[in-house]
This record gives sequence, structure tokens and C-alpha cells, in this order.
Amino acid sequence: MDAIDVIRVKRDGGELTPDQIDWAVDAYTRGAIAEEQMSALAMAILLNGMTRAEVARWTEAMIASGERMDWSALDRPTTDKHSTGGVGDKITLPLAPTVAACGAAVPQLSGRGLGHTGGTLDKLESIPGWRASLTNAEMLDVLDASGAVICAAGTGLAPADRKLYALRDVTGTVESIPLIASSIMSKKIAEGTGALVLDVKVGSGAFMKTPETARELAETMVAIGSDHGVRTVALLTAMDRPLGNAVGNALEVAESVEVLAGGGPSDVVELTVALAREMLAAAGITGKDPADALRDGSAMDAWRRMITAQRGDPDAPLPTAVVTHTIAAPASGVLTRLDAYGVGVAAWRLGAGRARKEDPVSFGAGVTCHAKPGETVEAGRPLLTLHTDDESRVARALESLDGAYEIVPGGTPDLHPLVLDKIT
Amino acid sequence: MDAIDVIRVKRDGGELTPDQIDWAVDAYTRGAIAEEQMSALAMAILLNGMTRAEVARWTEAMIASGERMDWSALDRPTTDKHSTGGVGDKITLPLAPTVAACGAAVPQLSGRGLGHTGGTLDKLESIPGWRASLTNAEMLDVLDASGAVICAAGTGLAPADRKLYALRDVTGTVESIPLIASSIMSKKIAEGTGALVLDVKVGSGAFMKTPETARELAETMVAIGSDHGVRTVALLTAMDRPLGNAVGNALEVAESVEVLAGGGPSDVVELTVALAREMLAAAGITGKDPADALRDGSAMDAWRRMITAQRGDPDAPLPTAVVTHTIAAPASGVLTRLDAYGVGVAAWRLGAGRARKEDPVSFGAGVTCHAKPGETVEAGRPLLTLHTDDESRVARALESLDGAYEIVPGGTPDLHPLVLDKIT
Repeated sequence: MDAIDVIRVKRDGGELTPDQIDWAVDAYTRGAIAEEQMSALAMAILLNGMTRAEVARWTEAMIASGERMDWSALDRPTTDKHSTGGVGDKITLPLAPTVAACGAAVPQLSGRGLGHTGGTLDKLESIPGWRASLTNAEMLDVLDASGAVICAAGTGLAPADRKLYALRDVTGTVESIPLIASSIMSKKIAEGTGALVLDVKVGSGAFMKTPETARELAETMVAIGSDHGVRTVALLTAMDRPLGNAVGNALEVAESVEVLAGGGPSDVVELTVALAREMLAAAGITGKDPADALRDGSAMDAWRRMITAQRGDPDAPLPTAVVTHTIAAPASGVLTRLDAYGVGVAAWRLGAGRARKEDPVSFGAGVTCHAKPGETVEAGRPLLTLHTDDESRVARALESLDGAYEIVPGGTPDLHPLVLDKIT
Repeated sequence: MDAIDVIRVKRDGGELTPDQIDWAVDAYTRGAIAEEQMSALAMAILLNGMTRAEVARWTEAMIASGERMDWSALDRPTTDKHSTGGVGDKITLPLAPTVAACGAAVPQLSGRGLGHTGGTLDKLESIPGWRASLTNAEMLDVLDASGAVICAAGTGLAPADRKLYALRDVTGTVESIPLIASSIMSKKIAEGTGALVLDVKVGSGAFMKTPETARELAETMVAIGSDHGVRTVALLTAMDRPLGNAVGNALEVAESVEVLAGGGPSDVVELTVALAREMLAAAGITGKDPADALRDGSAMDAWRRMITAQRGDPDAPLPTAVVTHTIAAPASGVLTRLDAYGVGVAAWRLGAGRARKEDPVSFGAGVTCHAKPGETVEAGRPLLTLHTDDESRVARALESLDGAYEIVPGGTPDLHPLVLDKIT
């Protein structure tokens, strides 16, 4: 087989055969297809699409490029969640221990942030001592001890995806639904979870800006999961405003701990419980209500065990930023809009995120939202607080917040429900 | 500026700005845009096209990546021809000296063959002693001495195109009309010719299989030439059957010499004269008939001067192949079809062409056609002769000729005229 022949099929709008897909993914992983050939193929896939059969096979070939983890030694069913990424999306932090407290095992491999959305590992690393890198044996130990583990994916898992993702990132070929879906699902299936709930974000702060594209991505991923024997459901959830009040690393950990203590912002609680119910149902666990686990302290107990098992100190004070800058409400009235993208970019520019993979993040940086859309604010009272270690970053953060909120006396916000739809 | 931003514009169907094009071509030439980024951009251009303004600017940026030659020291107007490549297309060999004999200067930079169509330099190199590589000063000397020079393009000419062409060759992005047109025209304009005639081939043996795509390519190139002040016309010519009777390197040189001696196959003579008339008209030379130059020996004199000036011996015997294999006509009747592509692939497999850039060619290899479509053949009489240095190549050459010809008693060939159209 020849790389140019495979590229031509997709370029000319044809369907790749299973053999062509298997060969292409394997040859690329081995280096027999050059980077410039794969990027031409990726662009042809982005522009000409893939059939359901092609996406399923492409995913399978990426899984086959590495190891597939096995949790059959556990006495509990496994279930996991993946979010396509949003602003203030700390849900994994309260969610994994809540589901663990209800009797499932959550083996979650997470990532770091790039761009305006944060990464779960960056957030957890703000906890002193906490380690993201575990061996497979250590993962099993943490799961056994606490019912949940959140760590970095090892290099043995879907190496084809790792290589392809890095290439797509620099060649303008990220925005392809078949490639996004197969990238996410290859890692989740190789991770060995028995059930999977997808949180597909929609709105200004999400990767998918419209319900139509979010639905297409969700349906593609649910189909891949089903084709591979993983019980998969997807929720489409709103990402037009930030999730919760805190956006940043340590700021989001603190908010997550509030939720685990039975408090916290209502939207974070609502989404944690909704996703937990889906994860438990997909794992076949009935008769447990995750809302109870948040109320009765069992979710908090699981959190403390999980953080401790990964060498973190759940009682240590979290890092705080050196500088804070408060934005006062310019008028009294109803906050009708607080744009997720604007707030996400502000947090990123304050140091919470990174511009390049190799950049460090600032644990204390971020944005606190003192009001959420629908709430009434009073002129002169704090609306947003910016946190940063570097005062020179404030000006550019303020730029990104220009026009990102709107206060209307007696106004009514155009709010979507948090959970927009469910795809099974 | 950023490579990903430029890729995204074209990926999403937009028009690149002049600044984006200048930056992209220059950054790629310097290595600031990586190969994998340019291949993604090339695939996006292939699939989403380019406007006339984009093609013109892209061509200009490729010209600006290197030197632009200058023939103003000559006392004659310059004029050149470019063919998109065909089977048995040796026209440059008799054409350049014929036009020189009529008073124009022909500074032709040519290429080598890749795939089933031959290269002018490969053909000329079968002449003992002949040198393809000349300095600019040597080119001027040859032009002064003989009125025509045919040599390899130096590395200083449109280096962006050189790099991009090598990339397109391995990434399935050759078949893009804007990229083909800008590649050809950037070299021809940088070559410094004042007038240009394009021979755009149409048919099975050509790169463009249909009149529609050939016309689109021709119109795109004529527009680029006009935009850059080069008087440019294009002829669309038939490439459903081979041109002339000889396909190969030395075989085509011998046939070209027959034409220069006033004989040779009628189609080669017809096209040589037609293109020569266009070249002279575009150069503003009137009152000279190239058919006279073929008849009165002045074209042959120019040929001998040109070959001698490039160290070739016009009187030396040409290389011949070690093995010949004759295919007899299987029936008596009219040869209604002789497929250019089948014959071209046969010659290529016999050793006349190369599979990879670094392969050598066999000078003696090729195919002789003893009849052309429309002629009557007799069962058992030679129809085709295969020439090769390696007998083991005959079997695969015969495969490519399977079904490539048709003999029908009393039949009439479906022959297109040789010159199909003219685009000005």
C-alpha cells in the first residue's frame, strides 16, 4: 500500500477500506507515513468527512497502536466521564469521588489545558504533593483504596492518537468531528472503562459553538462507544456562561471541595449529580443517589482518600495569587449575560492556562465571578475578581472582558437550561 | 502571522490576502512554515480552490523567492513554449531551433520525466556529450551562438516552487489547477521570456483527461501570464494517441532529426509548425514561415549549432536498446484506436522513464508505433516494437498494452483534430 493512494481516495471523496485505515494508522505510528503525508490526509478528512464505518475503524486502529488497560481484577464495575472542555469546568473533581462513593470504580485518564479551557491535571496539581503520573499498578492501588483515580495517560496508550493530535494541533486540522471523536474515544476505550458518559459542551466557551455540531460530535462518539462494547451516553450541556463561580486552578479546587462538603454553586452541584446519575446507570448500579453522597460526607471521604493515595495533602492550604484586581458592577440591574469565552480568555491571560504545551501554569491565577446570569447586581459592588501573579497581565485580561457581560435594569437573561439534551 | 491562521482561511473556504500569500510562500521557503503545515494548506487549496487574484499573487510570491533572468542583452525578442506533457511529445526538440531559425531567441528551461510522460532533458541527454546544466552566462552564449538553448533550471529560479513541487509529489496534492498553473508559470516568468505559448494536452496520455479541465488550466495560465506582462497564448492539443511514431529518449531524438530534415511524421510536423507560428506571433515576428525553415535546412542548422554549443555531437550514433520485441497486428483492418496512456506506460516500464527521481533512464528504451490511428494494418505485420535493455521488462510492458489498441475491418477512428482550441 502507498500513502499517496490512501490520500487520493479521501481527497476525491471516497470511502477508505478497513485495510487502508489499518495500514495508514499503523504506518504513521511507525514513521512509514511521513508527517506531511498524514497532514494532507487529515485535511482531506476534515473537508470530505468520514462514514460511521470509517470512524469506527480509524478509532480501532488507534486503540490497536498501543496497550488496552484491563480492570477485570476490580470487584466493582468501571465507569468514566469525558468533557469536551469548558470554562470553569471542574466537574471531574467532585464527580469522580461522588460516583466512587456510590459503588462504581472511576479510572479517569485526564489531560492538561491548552488555550482558554483549563485541564483537570493542572487543577489537581495545585494541591501540594499531588502526583499526576502513575504506573498502571499504582492506578489499580489508588482505585482499590478510594474507588477513583485521576491521572495522566501513559505513553503506551493510543500512541497513534498522541502523534496525530500533536500534528493536527499545528496544521489547522483540529476541527474535524471524525478526528475529534476518534481521538477522544480511542483513549477512553483503551483506558478500559466499561461505561462512559460524555459531557459535550455547547456555546461560546466550548469547542462546539452550536447545538448542531455538538449533537453531531455526541452522536459520532456514542456510535463509536457502542460499536466497541462500551455503554456510552452523552449529555449536551450549556457553555455560554462559566460553570460555577471560580475559573482557574486552585480556585476551582476550592470550589470543588465546597461542593463535596455539600455546598457550592447550584450549577456545579446540578451537573455533578446529573452526570453521576448517568455514570451509575451506565454501570448498572441502581438504588444509590449521588446527591445523598454529597450530603452525607461519603463523597468527601472518597475525595480525601483519592487525593491522599496520589500523595496529595487534602488539608494543605491552596496556592493563592499575588495580585487581585476587582471589577465593580458599572450599573445596578440584572446580569443578563456573562460570556464564557471572555472569562475563559481572561483567566488564561492571567496565567491559569498556557499558550504552548511546555509553558507552566500559575496555580493561583484565574477569575472569580461574584454573580451569575439571572442574578441582580448593585452598581459599585464587586462583579468579577481577577487573580494573577503578574500585575502586567491584568490589562490584557481586562481587554478580553470588554463586552463580555451585560447588566440591564429589570432585564431577563436568555438562559439555556444547563442540560440541553441527552444522546443515547 | 501564523501558519495555522493562514491554513484556516483556506480550509474554511475564504480568500487569502496578498500579505498572507507573500508571508506563506516566503516563510515556507525559509523553513518557518513546516512541511506538514504546507501540505495541509496545499490540500485545502486543492479542495477549496483559489481565485484569479490569489493564483496571480501566489505565482508572484514564488517568482520573488528566487532570481529573475534577464535577456535584454540579446538583439532578438525572446519566446518560449511549455507543454503539460504527453506521450511521444518531443516537440521542443524540432521547435526551438525552428523558431530560432525564424529570428526569435528561445531560452527554454526544461525538466526531466517522472511517470509515464518523458522529459525533454532525458531525451537530449541521449545525444553523446550533450550537457543539460549551464550557468546563466553559458545560456547567454548558447543563445547568442544558435538562437535557442534547452537546459535545466538552476536552483536559484523559483526555489519556493522547487520545494513545494517535491512536497506535492508525495502528499497527493499535485492535481490542483491553481498549484499546477502557478508552478509552471512561476518558472516560465522567472526564466525571463517575453512571450509564451502553452501546449496544454488533453486525453488519456495527458495529465488533463478532459477538455474542461484542460481549458480551465489553460485559461488560468494565460491569465497569470497576462497579469505578469508576458504575452501568453495556449493551444489545447490532442493526447488520446501518442504524438509521432517514436516514444522513448533516443528514439524521439531520431524522429525529431527526421522532422528537422524536412521529413518525419505528419502530426509532429503539424504541431511543430502550429506552435512555432504562435511563438513567432507572440514575439511580434512576422513574415517568416516556420514550415520554410524545416524545408530549407535553416532549422536543422540551428539544431546542429545548439547541440554543438552544449557539447553534444549531432553526428554521433544514438544509443540503441539491447532487446527488441515486435507485436504483430492480430487482424487486418483500420487501426481505430492506439491509447496514449497504454503506450506511455509501456515505454516507461521498458526503461524510458523513471519511477523515482533518483532513478536513471535507459536512453535506448521505448516503443515504436508502426501505424497510427486511421491507418490500415495487415494481420501479422509489425504493429508495435518494444525496445529495452532488460528483457524481463517486456512482460509488464505488454500488460499495459493489453486493450490499448483496436483494429476494425472497414472501421473509422474517432479522431479528434490535433489542435483542439486556442486560448488567448
